[in-house]
Amino acid sequence: MSGLLSVDADRLLADLTTLGGFGRNGAGGVDRASFSAADLAARAWLTASCVKAGLRVEVDGIGNLVVSSPSLEEGIADRAPVWTGSHIDAVPNGGMYDGPLGSLAAIECLRRLHEEHVALERPVRAIVYVDEEGNYAHLLGSSALTRGFVADELQELRGRDGDRFADTFAAAGGDLQAAAAVRLTPGSVHASVELHIEQGPVLEREGVDVGVVSGIVSIGGGTVRFMGRADHAGTTPMDARKDAVLAAADFITRLPALVPRAGAASVVTTGIVRARPGGSNVVAEEAEVVVDFRHPATEKARQLEELISAAALDVARERELQVNLDWEPLVPAAPMHQTVRNAIRESAAALGCSTRDIPSGAGHDSQNLATIAPTGMIFVPSVDGRSHSPSELTRDRDVVHGADVLLGTLLRLAAAQPAAATQDSH
Amino acid sequence: MSGLLSVDADRLLADLTTLGGFGRNGAGGVDRASFSAADLAARAWLTASCVKAGLRVEVDGIGNLVVSSPSLEEGIADRAPVWTGSHIDAVPNGGMYDGPLGSLAAIECLRRLHEEHVALERPVRAIVYVDEEGNYAHLLGSSALTRGFVADELQELRGRDGDRFADTFAAAGGDLQAAAAVRLTPGSVHASVELHIEQGPVLEREGVDVGVVSGIVSIGGGTVRFMGRADHAGTTPMDARKDAVLAAADFITRLPALVPRAGAASVVTTGIVRARPGGSNVVAEEAEVVVDFRHPATEKARQLEELISAAALDVARERELQVNLDWEPLVPAAPMHQTVRNAIRESAAALGCSTRDIPSGAGHDSQNLATIAPTGMIFVPSVDGRSHSPSELTRDRDVVHGADVLLGTLLRLAAAQPAAATQDSH
Repeated sequence: MSGLLSVDADRLLADLTTLGGFGRNGAGGVDRASFSAADLAARAWLTASCVKAGLRVEVDGIGNLVVSSPSLEEGIADRAPVWTGSHIDAVPNGGMYDGPLGSLAAIECLRRLHEEHVALERPVRAIVYVDEEGNYAHLLGSSALTRGFVADELQELRGRDGDRFADTFAAAGGDLQAAAAVRLTPGSVHASVELHIEQGPVLEREGVDVGVVSGIVSIGGGTVRFMGRADHAGTTPMDARKDAVLAAADFITRLPALVPRAGAASVVTTGIVRARPGGSNVVAEEAEVVVDFRHPATEKARQLEELISAAALDVARERELQVNLDWEPLVPAAPMHQTVRNAIRESAAALGCSTRDIPSGAGHDSQNLATIAPTGMIFVPSVDGRSHSPSELTRDRDVVHGADVLLGTLLRLAAAQPAAATQDSH
Repeated sequence: MSGLLSVDADRLLADLTTLGGFGRNGAGGVDRASFSAADLAARAWLTASCVKAGLRVEVDGIGNLVVSSPSLEEGIADRAPVWTGSHIDAVPNGGMYDGPLGSLAAIECLRRLHEEHVALERPVRAIVYVDEEGNYAHLLGSSALTRGFVADELQELRGRDGDRFADTFAAAGGDLQAAAAVRLTPGSVHASVELHIEQGPVLEREGVDVGVVSGIVSIGGGTVRFMGRADHAGTTPMDARKDAVLAAADFITRLPALVPRAGAASVVTTGIVRARPGGSNVVAEEAEVVVDFRHPATEKARQLEELISAAALDVARERELQVNLDWEPLVPAAPMHQTVRNAIRESAAALGCSTRDIPSGAGHDSQNLATIAPTGMIFVPSVDGRSHSPSELTRDRDVVHGADVLLGTLLRLAAAQPAAATQDSH
């Protein structure tokens, strides 16, 4: 690989370890909700570390960090930049890779370009999106940039702990009017690319180094509520009951069989169930099941919603009770752009990394960026597919592979002659 | 039926209506938890009403009301009494018959005996047991009488609203040492009989006037907890999951098929289900199912516990996840006494009421009384089997039938020559 620009692996791995210490809890997990003390401390450390490296850090109106190299941008600062980045907030008791990897690798790439005074045709900027994990709103920072908020919407937001976003944001120095004003126009970003862990087992299972994300899945979901009749658990014969929990259980067990009918890439999850009145000696009158379903193609997700609805109606009819279906609007699939996907593939090939196309089953800020700019994502393997947990792990070699593939991708997207950077590769 | 002593139907029905007004809520149900303001007001009204009728009301150490007729007990007060009664506390949003019927009918019977100066061989006393519905402890009042509590146990009790029994009891004038001292010795009660609504659909379905309770079912239950693995709902393929909710649903749907194997009289209920961590986008790591199962025979209930355990273990093995079974000690069946059952049958026959033997699927204070005295229960039909709900209803004619059958039963149990009371019946 001699001649290829590469990241400083030790520096990147040390940064990952340092960032993983902010909000570390007794269970070995990371508690770093956006705007928490741990999150604010991590942002301060990250900012200082960038400034020390000669980079400039700006905070936009909603709280996204925008990192740039003033010297690299001389003469090209007015051109649409290439963006790369991720987030550093975490789910409760989360891991140390989901978000930090793509954020720190973005900064490391920019640092290397800055150190090597690499001549670019357009700026490269590293972005740390605020509140990707939705303590206040899912993909808050990138949603503010791409669809925009009005201040009143932001006023309504509350955190997992019940705090008002407006209060927390003001305490951190934020201003709601400025937050509502950050929206970008299409074309203002030349291209965007995000490095992230897979959060699933596919790459590791197949021994593939790098996933070239084909698109972010369409996500649907909502609440299916069965309404039967409350009866005494001791005095009501089994054949005289309208048991809402039994109906919900019947419904849940029918879902896996629907998956092949909408395509093997479908997933259906029922992570929340509730019974009412919820007494051990009362046959349940109501049972709620929260359903989440996803497919890489919006049309297939819609078909899945129809199949799930039909299954719920079947159960209700067969068991002679009522059912209510309350579906959220389907989030459409976000296909990744061929230009960026090609740049990722070429960069990986130049490094000798194996690749495969892979859909993203999780939501990412890149699905918002895709609405205003050509966008792509790079996945690296997650050990045993674990994510959103203390056991989340991506091996050092995969961290470095991912960052190097990102660096090559940025060079291709930001340079006039991308081939120049790889001309003497093996 | 001329010549047979009977209750004052209008008075009894008016009493039921009056008592049903204490704690009446906007949904048409009754909120009258033991020691609530509504319960204390109802007890005060009931006491005043008894005193007005010339009866004596005593409150024992735990709060049970004991109603007697001083004039009827002259010369026989030292003989073991016949007890009859029920409770007046209610489940949240309960009905107006479960408890009040047996309490008010008991008082009405005693009132009629008192009014008619009926010569008895032993005292008849009407009892209103405290906290049958277990705001603090299931069957609290009768448990204190039959198995006894030590003061420390009572100290530990908390109400549904989180209040300490010790505080609430003291505020109502109670004393924990006195509460612990109310235990009765076997033989101190000659016989006990309780009138209650069926709380199920059997008598109404079959057009039978009166149920002669054969016994109170054996009750078992506990918590079955499936432990899988938390996974991302979007990134984890269906075949790579260990979904605790899916396992719990599979388990729940297998239960109805077990019922015939332990006998048609079995019931199994899963009124509480919980998923953890409980996120719409997280495959559940844990799912808890609270199971309640009952059978008229203790041995059959034990067999049911084994069948349910085996089903849970099968699911865990087939789905390759863990399961934990936490069963409460089985409450043994309480058979009703033949002497009391015969007295009920004779009383019903004398009134021209049809009868059938019937098990009680619900727990009652009578299961405690059965451990120290010959005990029986009389059931009257519940419309549509409804109970523990605002729609609980027993028709006026059945209320009166039940009270008259109770009165005849008390005469048989308390008089030297029970035949005398029925000699000129039709």
